[in-house]
Amino acid sequence: MFVNLLHNYIKMTTQQLIQQIQLKKSFLCVGLDVDLNKIPQHLLALEDPIFEFNKAIIDATHDLTVSYKPNTAFYEAYGIKGWMSLQKTINYINEKYPDIFTIADAKRGDIGNTSSMYAKAFFEDLNFDSVTVAPYMGKDSVEPFLAFENKHTIMLALTSNEGAFDFQTLNVSDASGGKELYKQVLETSKTWKNSVNLMYVVGATKAEYFTEIRKIVPDSFLLVPGVGAQGGSLAEVCKYGMNANVGLLINSSRAIIYASNGTDFAEKARAEALKMQQEMEGIISLKFEKV
Amino acid sequence: MFVNLLHNYIKMTTQQLIQQIQLKKSFLCVGLDVDLNKIPQHLLALEDPIFEFNKAIIDATHDLTVSYKPNTAFYEAYGIKGWMSLQKTINYINEKYPDIFTIADAKRGDIGNTSSMYAKAFFEDLNFDSVTVAPYMGKDSVEPFLAFENKHTIMLALTSNEGAFDFQTLNVSDASGGKELYKQVLETSKTWKNSVNLMYVVGATKAEYFTEIRKIVPDSFLLVPGVGAQGGSLAEVCKYGMNANVGLLINSSRAIIYASNGTDFAEKARAEALKMQQEMEGIISLKFEKV
Repeated sequence: MFVNLLHNYIKMTTQQLIQQIQLKKSFLCVGLDVDLNKIPQHLLALEDPIFEFNKAIIDATHDLTVSYKPNTAFYEAYGIKGWMSLQKTINYINEKYPDIFTIADAKRGDIGNTSSMYAKAFFEDLNFDSVTVAPYMGKDSVEPFLAFENKHTIMLALTSNEGAFDFQTLNVSDASGGKELYKQVLETSKTWKNSVNLMYVVGATKAEYFTEIRKIVPDSFLLVPGVGAQGGSLAEVCKYGMNANVGLLINSSRAIIYASNGTDFAEKARAEALKMQQEMEGIISLKFEKV
Repeated sequence: MFVNLLHNYIKMTTQQLIQQIQLKKSFLCVGLDVDLNKIPQHLLALEDPIFEFNKAIIDATHDLTVSYKPNTAFYEAYGIKGWMSLQKTINYINEKYPDIFTIADAKRGDIGNTSSMYAKAFFEDLNFDSVTVAPYMGKDSVEPFLAFENKHTIMLALTSNEGAFDFQTLNVSDASGGKELYKQVLETSKTWKNSVNLMYVVGATKAEYFTEIRKIVPDSFLLVPGVGAQGGSLAEVCKYGMNANVGLLINSSRAIIYASNGTDFAEKARAEALKMQQEMEGIISLKFEKV
């Protein structure tokens, strides 16, 4: 029989995230985008290779990162087994490392009653701290996510891919003049109910845009993909994007999790994560010594 | 052990969809948005109430509709059990009613390698004929879906909700002058590889926009939500949106599937679907007698 469980779910405030960044001297987010064709082949003999891979990566990197971000596509591609791997992964993080900020990179968004169901899926059923959403359908497609207290909604603003220039950077005009679409998206979203629960995706491949973005959302956390495999520079992003609370989560997926496809994959992932963490520690100490 | 199955998956050409419309004198799509709080309570005692509900609705309406559209949010909200209900539902349709055009209403979209995984999830693992996608991330977020032959990608253009006016109808400017964002989305998408596999979501609540939309995409199928519960008019949509092949799939979810919440729910759903089909038959005969 189907039962609606009432979850006693974990919440993480923005303040707690900031404390973790200070404590670990890291604002690294590790993307758990697990492709069975890319993981070490010895894992494929196990019952749940995706979860075993994630578990090893998480155990090897948890003290260097403040966040994990499974991308739901990589789990859905394997159907029910994939969804089970996702659930085991988030449960493992929540139980063993409850101070980690978890992101369901799902890029959802639909009409209001449907977005409410997505919010339940990720905030209640799976118990993630946050979920990524797409802005195209506007206010009533995002507000159902924002209604969850101490859960965070990370909206696409300016993405790291080529296609970002198809629509996001087009000039839109309204009564107040012209600006790029992604800036309009940022500005409009600030007027939505519970907008304090918003964070934004801004690609690292466009570091020069961060100055303008910080004028619109000076205090918000920005989730930044595109450092590493996609070629963005950490130093550049920090130079233009960091605020007084750091305010950045820098995602790295492939460069860390696929650092080796041998039996040493977790060790090599740790080495890559450590390089990132050390670079971040350097940036943090430089930035906050000056102040 | 995890095995990558090679699916011998069903494909449905646009021509086959058009034939089904002619045969059934219907261009109805029934949205399978199953909320456990809204279905007849006697079903909750069964092992898989979501699937049992869908099965009864499908058996009662399959000759009146050319398409079923489960919205993935309503399945994800129930976790693994929900995903299993989704899989059983699509398998049931594909096995028992293979001439039905199936739509995964998922509104996905991500960077290229991630969109490829979503395409695999819906076209291969679940074996849907089509999936809905969001345009915000542009060309390389949609083309991985378009690469599947005789699978269809239904992109959001102008949606049926209030939030459609937040960004979709903003005026954007490029070298060729100014136009609303949704028109730019339509025009740009026509330049993408395998754009012949594109259909578009256009909300019924904005019937007067169909004339302009048909100037840009005269031949494409349009998936039209918003008739019924959201207040759009079927006659108005057909007047401005129909093309020589009908070219419309009119979605109705709540008005059909929740017509009754008693033990007669399937019968009442059929009665509502029949009303829609008869109205459609009237419109088709009027339109094509005149030609």
